Amino acid sequence: MIVVMREDASDAQIQAISNRIRGMGFDIHPDRGANRTVLGVIGDTSRLDPRSLEMEEGVAEVLRVTEPYKLASRAFHPNDTVIRIGDVAIGGDEVIVIAGPCAVENAEQIRETASRVRQAGARILRGGAFKPRTSPYSFQGLGEKGLELLRDAAREQDMLCVSEVMEPAYVRSVADRVDIVQVGARNMQNFPLLKEVGRIDKPVLLKRGMSATIEELLMAAEYIMASGNPRVMLCERGIRTFETYTRNTMDISAIPVVKKRSHLPILADPSHGTGRRDKVAPMARAAVAAGADGLIIEVHTHPDQALSDGPQSLYPDRFAALMEELKTIAWAIGRRIGAGSDREPERNR
Amino acid sequence: MIVVMREDASDAQIQAISNRIRGMGFDIHPDRGANRTVLGVIGDTSRLDPRSLEMEEGVAEVLRVTEPYKLASRAFHPNDTVIRIGDVAIGGDEVIVIAGPCAVENAEQIRETASRVRQAGARILRGGAFKPRTSPYSFQGLGEKGLELLRDAAREQDMLCVSEVMEPAYVRSVADRVDIVQVGARNMQNFPLLKEVGRIDKPVLLKRGMSATIEELLMAAEYIMASGNPRVMLCERGIRTFETYTRNTMDISAIPVVKKRSHLPILADPSHGTGRRDKVAPMARAAVAAGADGLIIEVHTHPDQALSDGPQSLYPDRFAALMEELKTIAWAIGRRIGAGSDREPERNR
Amino acid sequence: MIVVMREDASDAQIQAISNRIRGMGFDIHPDRGANRTVLGVIGDTSRLDPRSLEMEEGVAEVLRVTEPYKLASRAFHPNDTVIRIGDVAIGGDEVIVIAGPCAVENAEQIRETASRVRQAGARILRGGAFKPRTSPYSFQGLGEKGLELLRDAAREQDMLCVSEVMEPAYVRSVADRVDIVQVGARNMQNFPLLKEVGRIDKPVLLKRGMSATIEELLMAAEYIMASGNPRVMLCERGIRTFETYTRNTMDISAIPVVKKRSHLPILADPSHGTGRRDKVAPMARAAVAAGADGLIIEVHTHPDQALSDGPQSLYPDRFAALMEELKTIAWAIGRRIGAGSDREPERNR
Amino acid sequence: MIVVMREDASDAQIQAISNRIRGMGFDIHPDRGANRTVLGVIGDTSRLDPRSLEMEEGVAEVLRVTEPYKLASRAFHPNDTVIRIGDVAIGGDEVIVIAGPCAVENAEQIRETASRVRQAGARILRGGAFKPRTSPYSFQGLGEKGLELLRDAAREQDMLCVSEVMEPAYVRSVADRVDIVQVGARNMQNFPLLKEVGRIDKPVLLKRGMSATIEELLMAAEYIMASGNPRVMLCERGIRTFETYTRNTMDISAIPVVKKRSHLPILADPSHGTGRRDKVAPMARAAVAAGADGLIIEVHTHPDQALSDGPQSLYPDRFAALMEELKTIAWAIGRRIGAGSDREPERNR
Repeated sequence: MIVVMREDASDAQIQAISNRIRGMGFDIHPDRGANRTVLGVIGDTSRLDPRSLEMEEGVAEVLRVTEPYKLASRAFHPNDTVIRIGDVAIGGDEVIVIAGPCAVENAEQIRETASRVRQAGARILRGGAFKPRTSPYSFQGLGEKGLELLRDAAREQDMLCVSEVMEPAYVRSVADRVDIVQVGARNMQNFPLLKEVGRIDKPVLLKRGMSATIEELLMAAEYIMASGNPRVMLCERGIRTFETYTRNTMDISAIPVVKKRSHLPILADPSHGTGRRDKVAPMARAAVAAGADGLIIEVHTHPDQALSDGPQSLYPDRFAALMEELKTIAWAIGRRIGAGSDREPERNR
Repeated sequence: MIVVMREDASDAQIQAISNRIRGMGFDIHPDRGANRTVLGVIGDTSRLDPRSLEMEEGVAEVLRVTEPYKLASRAFHPNDTVIRIGDVAIGGDEVIVIAGPCAVENAEQIRETASRVRQAGARILRGGAFKPRTSPYSFQGLGEKGLELLRDAAREQDMLCVSEVMEPAYVRSVADRVDIVQVGARNMQNFPLLKEVGRIDKPVLLKRGMSATIEELLMAAEYIMASGNPRVMLCERGIRTFETYTRNTMDISAIPVVKKRSHLPILADPSHGTGRRDKVAPMARAAVAAGADGLIIEVHTHPDQALSDGPQSLYPDRFAALMEELKTIAWAIGRRIGAGSDREPERNR
Repeated sequence: MIVVMREDASDAQIQAISNRIRGMGFDIHPDRGANRTVLGVIGDTSRLDPRSLEMEEGVAEVLRVTEPYKLASRAFHPNDTVIRIGDVAIGGDEVIVIAGPCAVENAEQIRETASRVRQAGARILRGGAFKPRTSPYSFQGLGEKGLELLRDAAREQDMLCVSEVMEPAYVRSVADRVDIVQVGARNMQNFPLLKEVGRIDKPVLLKRGMSATIEELLMAAEYIMASGNPRVMLCERGIRTFETYTRNTMDISAIPVVKKRSHLPILADPSHGTGRRDKVAPMARAAVAAGADGLIIEVHTHPDQALSDGPQSLYPDRFAALMEELKTIAWAIGRRIGAGSDREPERNR
Repeated sequence: MIVVMREDASDAQIQAISNRIRGMGFDIHPDRGANRTVLGVIGDTSRLDPRSLEMEEGVAEVLRVTEPYKLASRAFHPNDTVIRIGDVAIGGDEVIVIAGPCAVENAEQIRETASRVRQAGARILRGGAFKPRTSPYSFQGLGEKGLELLRDAAREQDMLCVSEVMEPAYVRSVADRVDIVQVGARNMQNFPLLKEVGRIDKPVLLKRGMSATIEELLMAAEYIMASGNPRVMLCERGIRTFETYTRNTMDISAIPVVKKRSHLPILADPSHGTGRRDKVAPMARAAVAAGADGLIIEVHTHPDQALSDGPQSLYPDRFAALMEELKTIAWAIGRRIGAGSDREPERNR
């Protein structure tokens, strides 16, 4: 952290702020220039609020020069983190596709969907059992029963599965039943929940909050990692902006930004990112083209009867066609989707 | 809900969508105009996602004409809700001021602060015991011990007290120790938490999420009310925008908007709303002038030593001066602050 | 400007960037610390893009420590600028109220409105003659004829007048007819227009762009001032956010922020800031309570027949009642509205 | 337009609003339902402000069911518009790449850049001569001389050229010298400028404003088209959000949204969209994958000496490599870049 003093700061002011910083246990590296004095603060400043120094007399600005996260930072871990679960590796050459319904509704629905998405090349099955719903009057999910239906359907297709957990008290129960535990966008800064998923031995899929900066997303990952769980994968799912034609604005540029700042895998969710079925395919293609390590896509065998998020769920046929497009795009940038996808691409459209 | 068909929609399409809506248990009131058909959907559409109909063939647009919340809506409860706790009434003529430190740090700090803010006219003491912190390396609060220090300090000054709860499992413990339970901005859509505070017999102070629309704030209140707790007060605390000179942009217009849409009291938090001590007073005055039912203001006896949010905490003397300004502004719009404030105002500055 | 090198930056990298900065005509003040080197760039860095140095090898971050504007900055002009036009002083003790219709429609409309707002205490008459309209099919204003109707109506009531100019070629024509030339929100970064109003001898009312930061607003003022016209007053009129209940989110906190950063007067436009008549009064009160030097309010004798912005225009009677509320609030913070307003306030509501 | 009355609206209120609407020259199609009355407004409502009816007594909501633009709307022109200039067709199968420096600096710079980007496959040369700069102290462009250098360099390479115009008085002069006239993001709602470029016989490249909704972008296109010029191509270039790691947030989803709503070609500008050289390639790939009809990319032979926007300009070698990636992605979705690009793709990375 660097404290830039005002040009007219007095010696007494410089002394006072220096004493205060030393009092907090940091060292000071002062630089008295011709125009102004700049104080370098030496020590672990990640717990120091820059604003607390900015209010002091004589201070022009306080600048953080290191990122407030460490475990999640590429500066400290130059190599990509690859998360391996069985024969699936997230963050490696293969672009991993997670697919399935928004919510697990019954055994038949989830089994049929699993079979269809598996056939098209998805490696991981998604399905909500505890649903965060804006309205208290909406379908809230099947709970633990839903988790079991999800796991059984995945096993039947030799797939992994992922589901969301919403409160600390349920973390272990969810972690016992699925392969990857998801923390949803609305809970990205639910700190007790982050700590709790930091204590389990399952990978965590952490979604970016609707109005979270990328720095805050990485800080949330830091929470989980600081609690003991290094296996975190991030997911861009659209941010809130003034635009209203789309439900959210999917921030595709977050993909290369996260790649530069962090070593963690970054996925993209074009279903929530756009909120509309007809925008899912172009945004899925865009995400892969921009370098995403994976996708999470909502697929439903009967979207018009879905208990939640039908409007953004793909029909299985459309999903299968999209997978073909994605395989070629992945190939174009030197990656692959699915085992057989290192083949020559087929031209689409 | 109203389904507007495209001008070129076929009879078969109109029939199909009508059947689908009826299949979901609603009645249809069709209006076949010269140009286009409009279908009125009759029934409780609060659990219906407009997007699910928008994707259908022949549909131009689906419009929600009733608000998705009922219990929180002024349409259903024309009279202002006044929340009475002891001799304090929130939502009535008196503008209630809540003040205190961001976090309870020790007995002396909270007792001294309580005494100072009480003297200046505050009715309710605030102080965090469970702190949501962006960084895992920051001070996380004293927990239940902090709640007890808070309550004792409040009782000593004949004040009420309020503190934040962050997870469902702690709701009862917090509710047992304080007079008002706060749900923070980051938890505004923590649905399990909303349900849990909906089951207690203490009023809830619900803060607007950083990127929540006013409609979502009212939906969050609806969650609490639908779970059985009608005593909800709302709080504007700044929204996230592109502006960077302030930490958040305090949305003062939310005050009159909430007043029109809902019968619940609406407070304002100029400390979090601006993030800087020198902006607290003007924004507090603005909030009262715009019609806020109360304020929540951070005050610390030694802001430069505060363990959190020192930069936005007022010194007790500045707080006392602000209270005098506020009393005159409240008087100007026909309200009052504190028992003795129905007096002739004194001119400030 | 300060260039912070990475901890692992090599001597060659430090040398290269230093040479490059010197090559651009700046001096370097290097500080080689224990951990990292920090380079202070000495000279007028306002024309230097920090990003251009950030891309260099070995650079961690480039920080601007001085504001990019000078003429508009309070650091260079500690005293408030007061703009005097006849007996009106903008930026002094008196809070100046500008009122009138969105657009001048005909002689009768503007004369009647002028008479009504003057009676209530407004000092300056507003009225658009060249209208920026989102739709090409909307009423576009009366042009120069409108300016003359405006000026005549103002003179009849012994008022000043203000109107908007939209293109450089018309600046002189507008400046010849009105007392204050307005640059609208959509033109805040119309640089040829800013330069042209910088060459006239009339004060300029510069509105903040819908998505402009406060820094950009001050940079736009700098454009005008650098072209030779120091008489600039700023105006907050609402920024674009995700909220949809209001047309824009009026950023009341911009008022104290501008007051701190700049010496220029800052006004507020609650009509455009909210877009709805029933929100104008609370936001006008809030702006005065927060320290605005003036207000600009749309008033129309028959809002339901207005050719533009009727929904946000006040009826003359409501405007007169609002002025009484405002006088008391101004009095409460040690200011006044209108000549006779230093009297004891009357209590409203 | 549809006026939804409140459930408790009286007959007199319904009569009053109906009379008012008829007085404005529209027909009314009333639908008196069991619960509420809905009034269909018949006629060209594009010049009617919904808010003006919303303020009336008894009205619950006013809903626009047709888009406010017609000429730009796909509803009225189902087929894609293809803009042909010489042998270049924008909006057809070929994805057109526009490349060149931010600003024309001198003959050598623009000639060398033209040669390099042409070799890599660009069809159109870009280069600013009139530069909109946030700071009055920055390089403002070479003016008409710059246009001529640009045109000459393009002709030498058998390329087309495009440059920005900033004020109405210069439109003809720019149009005389270049093949495509650009309206920049800051001028998207500079209505006099839109009208003026609507009167010329050259295609217009219209960039989306930093805080413009897609609807506003299409309305701006409507302005140009309504003035007589149907050859408008749109360009997404990043919107302003709360995220700070990138300069703007490039809204890739705008590409499929515009494709659905409008028949006009839509391009993407990843240079301004991200503001950082290292993000240009991933976002260019994403835009093509999402279906953009073209790209506009800043390339500079010596970015570190560029007079503006160096940090976001690609080196010619990186541009050439990117073009190879783009050709394969275009091929993957059934399109092509450059004449020879219908060949089998080469795998990149």
